[in-house]
Amino acid sequence: MVKINENFKDLKENYLFSTVAKKVSEFQEKNPNKKVIKLGIGDVTRPIPNSCIKAMKRALDEMSNSKTFRGYGPEQGYEFLRKAIVDNEYKNLGIDIDEIFISDGAKCDCGNIVDLFDKDNKIAITDPVYPVYLDTNVMAGRAGEYINNKYSKVIYIPLTEENNFIPDMSKEIPDIIYLCFPNNPTGTVLTKEQLKLWVDYAKENNSIIMFDAAYCEFITQKDIPKSIYEIEGAKEVAIEFKSYSKTAGFTGIRCAYTVVPKTLFAWDKNKEKIQLNKLWNRRQCTKFNGVSYITQRGAEAIYTKEGKNEIKENINYYMNNARIILKGLKEKNIVAYGGINSPYVWLKTPNNISSWDFFDKLLLEANVVGTPGEGFGPSGEGYFRLTAFGSKENTIEAMDRIKSMKI
Amino acid sequence: MVKINENFKDLKENYLFSTVAKKVSEFQEKNPNKKVIKLGIGDVTRPIPNSCIKAMKRALDEMSNSKTFRGYGPEQGYEFLRKAIVDNEYKNLGIDIDEIFISDGAKCDCGNIVDLFDKDNKIAITDPVYPVYLDTNVMAGRAGEYINNKYSKVIYIPLTEENNFIPDMSKEIPDIIYLCFPNNPTGTVLTKEQLKLWVDYAKENNSIIMFDAAYCEFITQKDIPKSIYEIEGAKEVAIEFKSYSKTAGFTGIRCAYTVVPKTLFAWDKNKEKIQLNKLWNRRQCTKFNGVSYITQRGAEAIYTKEGKNEIKENINYYMNNARIILKGLKEKNIVAYGGINSPYVWLKTPNNISSWDFFDKLLLEANVVGTPGEGFGPSGEGYFRLTAFGSKENTIEAMDRIKSMKI
Repeated sequence: MVKINENFKDLKENYLFSTVAKKVSEFQEKNPNKKVIKLGIGDVTRPIPNSCIKAMKRALDEMSNSKTFRGYGPEQGYEFLRKAIVDNEYKNLGIDIDEIFISDGAKCDCGNIVDLFDKDNKIAITDPVYPVYLDTNVMAGRAGEYINNKYSKVIYIPLTEENNFIPDMSKEIPDIIYLCFPNNPTGTVLTKEQLKLWVDYAKENNSIIMFDAAYCEFITQKDIPKSIYEIEGAKEVAIEFKSYSKTAGFTGIRCAYTVVPKTLFAWDKNKEKIQLNKLWNRRQCTKFNGVSYITQRGAEAIYTKEGKNEIKENINYYMNNARIILKGLKEKNIVAYGGINSPYVWLKTPNNISSWDFFDKLLLEANVVGTPGEGFGPSGEGYFRLTAFGSKENTIEAMDRIKSMKI
Repeated sequence: MVKINENFKDLKENYLFSTVAKKVSEFQEKNPNKKVIKLGIGDVTRPIPNSCIKAMKRALDEMSNSKTFRGYGPEQGYEFLRKAIVDNEYKNLGIDIDEIFISDGAKCDCGNIVDLFDKDNKIAITDPVYPVYLDTNVMAGRAGEYINNKYSKVIYIPLTEENNFIPDMSKEIPDIIYLCFPNNPTGTVLTKEQLKLWVDYAKENNSIIMFDAAYCEFITQKDIPKSIYEIEGAKEVAIEFKSYSKTAGFTGIRCAYTVVPKTLFAWDKNKEKIQLNKLWNRRQCTKFNGVSYITQRGAEAIYTKEGKNEIKENINYYMNNARIILKGLKEKNIVAYGGINSPYVWLKTPNNISSWDFFDKLLLEANVVGTPGEGFGPSGEGYFRLTAFGSKENTIEAMDRIKSMKI
């Protein structure tokens, strides 16, 4: 008799964004004439840069000719892209081509990486958190029971106003620590010094850090690390996830990469050190078949002079939206965080109303969609996320509507 | 202390195709002037059909304009492609759009599907077998120890000359049965009647069949099912995997799909029936972010009139190669199977030499690369795989060289 993975039963029924989508579509059915502005999900609106489009068209021409056609590519990604990444993203950080793995998305990598680890690792997440870290560990049986909004075996590290959104070291030692900075959903960052404390902590405890740097290109302030490998010792404790989704608008094109340094180890039952780079390589070679050649040529073009300028323009565009949001909220006396080194603005719900109540109020009264903080974890209650990924016009209109709400 | 997934240690060190690649590159280094013809790995050589290229270019134009730009697509795939699949591949078979899941490859799906099942399911594979079914179950801890060329907990069902390549029902009842027909590597097929026996067997024993139909478009004979859902009752016992890799040359583009009928269930600890369609949907929504919009438009074009003709032409081209291979082997008095409903030819090594010895001999004397049967499992020993995916010219030349070998 075929038996299911029981851990799936521990997953919460409602995935955050599907609940939001359902509420929005119900509202739109009832109010077909109202223009709803979505500042909820982290999806982009700017088109793919011209340099990427041109490169992908050239690649398509190659694929249409038997002389230049390419079949299966390397599971790890083409060397031309891995080299461009090393040269452009990790200059002077000592990261090697063999440590870069191209994939079809940071979400996939964050999810699939759990394959490498024993069920009995203790995981720590910051709270609120991007749900994928948690759900993929629930599926793998590492989370325990869901009681009072929390999984019993998971260490929750609050990120709140009270601790200035700086995660405190946990007294209970985790084996695997998920850190995402610039943070999703709070939009807050860690300085090099603050991140160094986590690298040291991981080293001291033989833990590993899963560092999600998907938003690193939005950093505007100095002394905020764009890669965890800017921190001394990080190559011995951290895997880093990066993505082209938010910079080059690749959410619908699908390309990302993961860095697994060869100096990074975990332990087996006999306390022998096992190189994680080898394990991830084996996992990818067995369960993955590489990213579309077309897509990889598109990603490579991001690193040309034209591509870099276009990316910069995209980011400036979105960060201008972030400023519009922050300014509007300030005028309305709503307290907000993030938005300076990140496309996410994390506001405190006015009058301490619940985050889902604020969601309903915003949808009903301003026809604006955001994401309720509670959906990201218990410490997200009382907060609300707005994203800077809309068009400038919509962002201005959304803030005007919010400003004229009765709060 | 972070602990690795111990099951990785049970994986065999050498992956079949990497060993082949290593031997070939060593040979080429020593013999830089010899032209090696590769009929080994199942990679295609014909370029992407024009209809697909045109559709992908149109999609790129859409992506370059903010009015027609698309960000995140549905994790399950766009409805336009799912609908085209239902209308073209499953006409009159009662498969619903919600039962189709688009992905970036059948290898990924075959690998990721194991997430849904408890560690303690007993798996059965045919032997020889596509290594991914086995390795992904090793990683999940279902295979046991590797002793004498076999994993102790896996049921091996031989596919050999002796049983006419028709898998016998196992006396020990498996929970999960992997079947691939037209078969990789043997190139052999099952009739509807023969497959029906397996569907009935699975139903009787509450087992599930993972049906890999990646080569269904190569079927030329009547009464050979292109989909397991042509068999009555299969929708209650089978998941089906299909791919555009070999038909439209998408090995480097990456697009496939998996069918998980809503009538398909597995059991939980309390013997309650759980719908696998829901579980797979949840898995994909959590660990996957959909396939490139560009790619999906390319796949859709396969179902246009022009696309269908181009695919047919591709398949005819490869099947003509298969005929060339079969004819050449016959002239050389080498016994061979497959090649009629499949791009794979499975030959018996002459004089009973081992499959790796035949590999070395073929590489050294004819400079032709094939795949040693032993690499696909213990029952593959004494056999050797040649594929029809080369160019016609190379296939003819390879067979001429083989014919002039001393055997």
